[in-house]
Amino acid sequence: LGNYLNTVMNQETANSSIGPRRKVGILGGGQLGLMLCQAAIDWDLDTYILDQSKDYPAAGICKHFTEGNFRDYNDVMSFGKELDLITIEIEDVSLEALYDLEKMGKTIHPKPSALATIKDKTLQKKYYKDKHIPTAPFIVFEDKQALISFLENNSEWLPCIWKNALGGYDGKGVKKITSLEEAMLLPDVKCLIEELVDIDKEIAVIAARNANGDIRCFDTVEMDFHPQANLVEYLISPSSVNDIQKATAKQIAVELIDSLDICGLLAVEMFLTKDNEILVNEVAPRPHNSGHHTIEAAFTSQFQQHLRGILNLPLGDTTAKYCSIMVNLLGEEGHSGPVQYEGAGEVLSIAGVYLHFYGKSETKPVRKMGHATILSDNMDDAKSKASKVKSLLKVISV
Amino acid sequence: LGNYLNTVMNQETANSSIGPRRKVGILGGGQLGLMLCQAAIDWDLDTYILDQSKDYPAAGICKHFTEGNFRDYNDVMSFGKELDLITIEIEDVSLEALYDLEKMGKTIHPKPSALATIKDKTLQKKYYKDKHIPTAPFIVFEDKQALISFLENNSEWLPCIWKNALGGYDGKGVKKITSLEEAMLLPDVKCLIEELVDIDKEIAVIAARNANGDIRCFDTVEMDFHPQANLVEYLISPSSVNDIQKATAKQIAVELIDSLDICGLLAVEMFLTKDNEILVNEVAPRPHNSGHHTIEAAFTSQFQQHLRGILNLPLGDTTAKYCSIMVNLLGEEGHSGPVQYEGAGEVLSIAGVYLHFYGKSETKPVRKMGHATILSDNMDDAKSKASKVKSLLKVISV
Repeated sequence: LGNYLNTVMNQETANSSIGPRRKVGILGGGQLGLMLCQAAIDWDLDTYILDQSKDYPAAGICKHFTEGNFRDYNDVMSFGKELDLITIEIEDVSLEALYDLEKMGKTIHPKPSALATIKDKTLQKKYYKDKHIPTAPFIVFEDKQALISFLENNSEWLPCIWKNALGGYDGKGVKKITSLEEAMLLPDVKCLIEELVDIDKEIAVIAARNANGDIRCFDTVEMDFHPQANLVEYLISPSSVNDIQKATAKQIAVELIDSLDICGLLAVEMFLTKDNEILVNEVAPRPHNSGHHTIEAAFTSQFQQHLRGILNLPLGDTTAKYCSIMVNLLGEEGHSGPVQYEGAGEVLSIAGVYLHFYGKSETKPVRKMGHATILSDNMDDAKSKASKVKSLLKVISV
Repeated sequence: LGNYLNTVMNQETANSSIGPRRKVGILGGGQLGLMLCQAAIDWDLDTYILDQSKDYPAAGICKHFTEGNFRDYNDVMSFGKELDLITIEIEDVSLEALYDLEKMGKTIHPKPSALATIKDKTLQKKYYKDKHIPTAPFIVFEDKQALISFLENNSEWLPCIWKNALGGYDGKGVKKITSLEEAMLLPDVKCLIEELVDIDKEIAVIAARNANGDIRCFDTVEMDFHPQANLVEYLISPSSVNDIQKATAKQIAVELIDSLDICGLLAVEMFLTKDNEILVNEVAPRPHNSGHHTIEAAFTSQFQQHLRGILNLPLGDTTAKYCSIMVNLLGEEGHSGPVQYEGAGEVLSIAGVYLHFYGKSETKPVRKMGHATILSDNMDDAKSKASKVKSLLKVISV
């Protein structure tokens, strides 16, 4: 038995090694892919990115860039068949290819089966219901006609939140519907409607898990949304919710990452209702906007933690070192074209401010062009610095 | 006057802007160039590297790599003439080219005149003497014959430290000479000999300065050297020297960076003698091995600070957040060939350990292949973790 265990442990060690012979493929080369590659540089991992243009953020710093469409079966197959390990920075990828690569013996994190559940918001919601995970009441419709017929007979559901089953991110594919007329204007797609929830706060927990089944969570954070763009504007860590609420939120994240059998990260966005209920809004099995502050504010960044999870390494310490606020840097209204960052010099004179520009060559209104993280020993100071950053730093065109 | 000041301020702002149109050239693509480029990614700077092979560490992550020799006049000229701003990761570059690029109006940091003083160790030592900066007594020789003649008549100088005037780094070009016979075996070069100092501790301060003349220093650190390789083995921050000694060391660093008119970093290595004197050993006008811990242990990393200095941005907060120890990861004796990192998985289970592998494809004995930084609230814990890292993590060949 001793020898057998040694063999198993040696295989385990070999599988979880890092260095230049460790090929890691990432579907998607946007800012999440960029920051994953930044984390991978420290461990000399052999990073491969598949995305449509070599002008995208991650293309310049990954080791190997392949031009192609991560939604296309053939592109993903030819990209993935040379790799050991494949992960994602976006859910909307060719699931069929990932299933086939998994059959070929490739390690895919998150697993295609988990991704299938998450990618389709109607399946995601049904999953919560099946697993008794609290979420807002909802109804699924195969197409627009079914939705309209329902609303004609059940007007008490209005107003409600409409969600496209597929393809939504950063608030796209999500809409508040107040009337039948508005519903008529929606695209003809598989969708769901959700009861409007009386939201006190939007919070999130990022959990991480490795193949050994170890799980760790980052602190519960709190999000302030940009009123027009439905994008996170300020991210506050730690959240001001109480300890019981934090523990409940973490417990939900742990249950979900475990039952979905995910290695790497699972970001869980939740509502704290005015009735003091915590409801899951949606999840993402990858690094997430609600974890950018961890680069400077936690002992382990979410990006390194994702790598640890997918490589089956010991998970890193998630302790927060500071109060922090993350500000998304969105393209200013009225500006489209080659980007410039106005006010960066002034902002860098403020102690505890960290800038991350994503290297997108063109800005447009409300496009995510970067983020700033503000660290402080106390939240009031962090908030006052965050509002200075917000007013001084503008993403404009040349 | 108001308009004039506005114009000046706008120019200043334009000159200190960051973003994709800010071209920064770096002579040298080793690990220091790599970590400078890593810092530059966050600010979306347009990085250019000149070095001999696209297999070198920084080549894969800079925006533009030029194959060439940074010691060659023509290579540096054709590289530099397209850029706004040029810096170095190594002193041994074509000074003539930098002087000519400066005449063309390019911004060069460190300035060629400062680099000329530092690059030649005999000029460096004379500079200390002229400026009344404490340093060990020394004598300069134009060639080996002059050295031998001197030692034949002044044997009381033996044993002593011999230094090649040019081209030494990482302990190369530095040798302890105990006899005339040993001196006979030295290369025939311009050189100096230095009185042997009774060293209590080797310490270092990294200062930073921008074109506005602002200066900030990182905490005084303490170095333990590898007995064979003469490379830093453990770097301890903060040093255990007393507050007066720390203040003296910082004062020396501030005087030097100011009088040398350097923008960016100046790393100042010093001896604390058993007589409680602080003597300057040597300086480097660039990021330095004695500052790697700042990536995780200080609010601003030395690499970001160098960028701030050369871009004339406000200097960052140099406060140390933790006790830290930096361990150089050197190639194991008896191993030459494609690198692998043994024990990385185990080491990553220790909280507060950060690994940096430099992406060199081939290891050889005592080659600098990476470093590990250990953070802790107390130095005893950091030391015990550092010794675990040292014993678990091995850089070997496949």
